[in-house]
Amino acid sequence: MEIKATNITWHAGVITAEDREKLLKQKGVVIWLTGLSGAGKSTIARELEKRLYDMGHLSYVLDGDNIRHGLNRNLGFSPEDRKENIRRISEVAKLFADAGVITITAFISPYREDRDNARKLLPEGKFVEVYVKCPLEKCEERDVKGLYKKARAGEIKEFTGISAPYEPPVNPELVIDTDKLSLDESVEMLLNYLNQKGIIAAN
Amino acid sequence: MEIKATNITWHAGVITAEDREKLLKQKGVVIWLTGLSGAGKSTIARELEKRLYDMGHLSYVLDGDNIRHGLNRNLGFSPEDRKENIRRISEVAKLFADAGVITITAFISPYREDRDNARKLLPEGKFVEVYVKCPLEKCEERDVKGLYKKARAGEIKEFTGISAPYEPPVNPELVIDTDKLSLDESVEMLLNYLNQKGIIAAN
Repeated sequence: MEIKATNITWHAGVITAEDREKLLKQKGVVIWLTGLSGAGKSTIARELEKRLYDMGHLSYVLDGDNIRHGLNRNLGFSPEDRKENIRRISEVAKLFADAGVITITAFISPYREDRDNARKLLPEGKFVEVYVKCPLEKCEERDVKGLYKKARAGEIKEFTGISAPYEPPVNPELVIDTDKLSLDESVEMLLNYLNQKGIIAAN
Repeated sequence: MEIKATNITWHAGVITAEDREKLLKQKGVVIWLTGLSGAGKSTIARELEKRLYDMGHLSYVLDGDNIRHGLNRNLGFSPEDRKENIRRISEVAKLFADAGVITITAFISPYREDRDNARKLLPEGKFVEVYVKCPLEKCEERDVKGLYKKARAGEIKEFTGISAPYEPPVNPELVIDTDKLSLDESVEMLLNYLNQKGIIAAN
């Protein structure tokens, strides 16, 4: 990048993704949590963020709270808008990973194609697909946000698991069965994976 | 955030923007560079990033290179699309600042209203508007990317400064006159500002 101003050559430095990883002592990756509403994605995301923070690592959670009311507030729930919702999230997650941040996304993201597109944006090994698995009956039983009740009553249309499909990952990096594991066990699984892959240093 | 799984209460930790700022020893802010094509925005952004890196600070540049071919690749150059382009960039910059990153945006962003909307997304003091000022004649003389030539030939429609307006900031935090300052002097101005405001510690 070079421009000339009053005969002074302007030439700027170049910092790479690797440089930022060195600074942060971690790899920039996307940890993509997918699963039914109520499976525990957001809770796992927040607890993982907390544990990483306590270890001195920078992570950031992208979820409905900070995306739907901001970047994607001009999107609805039509099939095209749902697709565009996940596409934008994927692109933002890519930027965060490029910045060196351990990026955790917590969205139902029910379609394989959308998740595969997210994976394609990232270099090999930088996309960690995590299936947060829980039987529909259990999610519906928990019904933390009361959404299943509304979906059954027909007040919410095309609700994943009830009136819209969920396509489980075929070959995810991790499966976390929240019907069997505690929150601590779930997050330990993730931390072990990140350690093994050299994304964070062994603690 | 609380859910129950097999009688185990799930309750996740909460990490705040302030926590991340403590970890990174810096404030998460948006440094919004605005100015004509060829004024030096990208070069200043990259050099500022380099200088911050050498001081141990994490910054990230959002510019045409990583936005137009990614997040905003489904946008054209109609007035609505230009507005949506800047809106999405503003929302992403907000997320980066929330993550604790010194976020540097380098877009012409010719309209006051769009920049003011970006400012409104951020807490007081976290939006630093920087007018990268350079006379049109100088930008056109440099014409690094050959765009002015094309604009004059009518090959590019609605080109800022030629066939579309540029609205200079009314009350920017900084004005950098790249027709008079060297790149080093320009970046020093920015670093001094960040120091004075406690965004980075004095070096």
